[in-house]
Amino acid sequence: MKNTAELRELFLNYLAQNSFDDEPQGLYAPVNYILDIGGKRMRPVMLLMACQLFDENVEKALPAALAVEIFHNFTLLHDDIMDDAPLRRGKTTVHEKYDTNTAILSGDVMMIHAYQYLAKASPQLLPDLLRIMNQLAIGVCEGQQYDMDFETVETVSIPEYLKMIELKTSVLLAGSMQMGALIGGASAKDAEQVYEFGRNVGIAFQLQDDILDTFGDPEKFGKRVGGDIVQNKKTFLVLKTLELATAEDRQNLHQLLQTAPADEAAKIEQVRTLFKKYKIRQQAGKKMNAYLDTAFHHLDLLEIPEARKVELRNLAHYLINREV
Amino acid sequence: MKNTAELRELFLNYLAQNSFDDEPQGLYAPVNYILDIGGKRMRPVMLLMACQLFDENVEKALPAALAVEIFHNFTLLHDDIMDDAPLRRGKTTVHEKYDTNTAILSGDVMMIHAYQYLAKASPQLLPDLLRIMNQLAIGVCEGQQYDMDFETVETVSIPEYLKMIELKTSVLLAGSMQMGALIGGASAKDAEQVYEFGRNVGIAFQLQDDILDTFGDPEKFGKRVGGDIVQNKKTFLVLKTLELATAEDRQNLHQLLQTAPADEAAKIEQVRTLFKKYKIRQQAGKKMNAYLDTAFHHLDLLEIPEARKVELRNLAHYLINREV
Repeated sequence: MKNTAELRELFLNYLAQNSFDDEPQGLYAPVNYILDIGGKRMRPVMLLMACQLFDENVEKALPAALAVEIFHNFTLLHDDIMDDAPLRRGKTTVHEKYDTNTAILSGDVMMIHAYQYLAKASPQLLPDLLRIMNQLAIGVCEGQQYDMDFETVETVSIPEYLKMIELKTSVLLAGSMQMGALIGGASAKDAEQVYEFGRNVGIAFQLQDDILDTFGDPEKFGKRVGGDIVQNKKTFLVLKTLELATAEDRQNLHQLLQTAPADEAAKIEQVRTLFKKYKIRQQAGKKMNAYLDTAFHHLDLLEIPEARKVELRNLAHYLINREV
Repeated sequence: MKNTAELRELFLNYLAQNSFDDEPQGLYAPVNYILDIGGKRMRPVMLLMACQLFDENVEKALPAALAVEIFHNFTLLHDDIMDDAPLRRGKTTVHEKYDTNTAILSGDVMMIHAYQYLAKASPQLLPDLLRIMNQLAIGVCEGQQYDMDFETVETVSIPEYLKMIELKTSVLLAGSMQMGALIGGASAKDAEQVYEFGRNVGIAFQLQDDILDTFGDPEKFGKRVGGDIVQNKKTFLVLKTLELATAEDRQNLHQLLQTAPADEAAKIEQVRTLFKKYKIRQQAGKKMNAYLDTAFHHLDLLEIPEARKVELRNLAHYLINREV
């Protein structure tokens, strides 16, 4: 059994061996650039880990792992254009370093290369893997659209928000793990359990991100704390406050989230005070814990030796710190 | 055997039955919009026709036909952003009618839906179809990149230009027909012949487009005659002139193609006069005819009854009028 660090190392070696050194350079240099920026490589590592639940020979899952990593980075390229983001993981975004047309076209070709790596799977598995890949990819696009739609509507319900984050971030993790399980030889039923594990972990992970964006330790968080508030994002914290607050506080929050004040720190503090009044951090933590519990329940249902599950359980605990 | 009009009708019915009425509307309304604008539907019709070479039951090729039509329209969506084009087939382009972010994201989801229609093929065929689809899709992106690269370089050789148009426009037609042939039950070898037919027809078609853009009948051409000259495009006509002309005329042409004069009609006429001096229309026509001959040669090599080939031969002749 390989641990998280070993699986990550294995993936990084495979990634390095498969860099895009093809012509035309104008198309592929940005692909190497975004893939080299890094990140936790959470999706490919968890795909390999899902494979390892059923088969220790995880090398055969490497092409699919690279497929989901390329796909994920394609979405980052296009999302950064849409958000007009200057930085990604502290580095200049592709549309800023090159230009928007390059970011569009290099993104497009990445998506196709993701399918090309997927196509390296055994022919027997290909129909299922392609179905899962299409499903998760469509989910990501639909989630991104809902996210953009939510910016311009007055209210969003909590179920709508949860559906959006499920599509935008969690189906990619879930589908990646389902593919890993199938490559490892899992039955369709077991692969479904793994999918549900990934889906619930993914939602919990996004809820944690909402919490940390507002209440995180600035030294540890990596991004600027309070960014969601400054951008007037309708996160779980906001939506839950709107649900629980008095009419007056609801009005206050609505107003705060329509302004772009000169003093951003004051705005962050005012919104945070409202959150605290309604114990929103605890509410969000409760919700997050519930998704985490559901995830582990699906892991429990897998009829494989507990020793095989330990690494995945530890990784989920490492990625998500239980709240409350 | 169905003729071209019947195959087109069959495809249009299938397209109408498969319109994108899903949520979120913000994502899928632009998809319906671009798919409804129309066009000749050349790629899906020729995919069905390639299927029909081997099997009259062409209905089973409809999902793949829709896949290539969706893929083609995805490339139009993104190309129109990159070219900042206001109109497509006389209608407002998607990024103008909606916005650029919509055109990016709706284009992305179209590409995935293309793969989803492809995935409806029989599992036995899927590995081959996926390989062909990936190959043509990567070709289209690489061709688009070369096309953009050529805008900013001083000189392009004729082989480089031919490689670019092969990638940008002809591998899509060729791959579509190869998939149609395989779905119709063709052997790998016969499907390769069909690919080569499509590849050569596609290049001939693009050369015809270069000729018509400069020498076409304004009433019949559909686009503005002289558009390539106004945009200083390095077409086959330009590159062949640079190859054949005296140093002085080469210099003249270079200068003409670096200017954006107030009097565009005069510029078009001056360039056209240079082309005529070196009989460039005839040169381009000769090249086009050679590709067409090669295409028909590959069709001849197919060991199927001649009666099955007639419709495809007629369509190629209809699409491309032999020059000289």
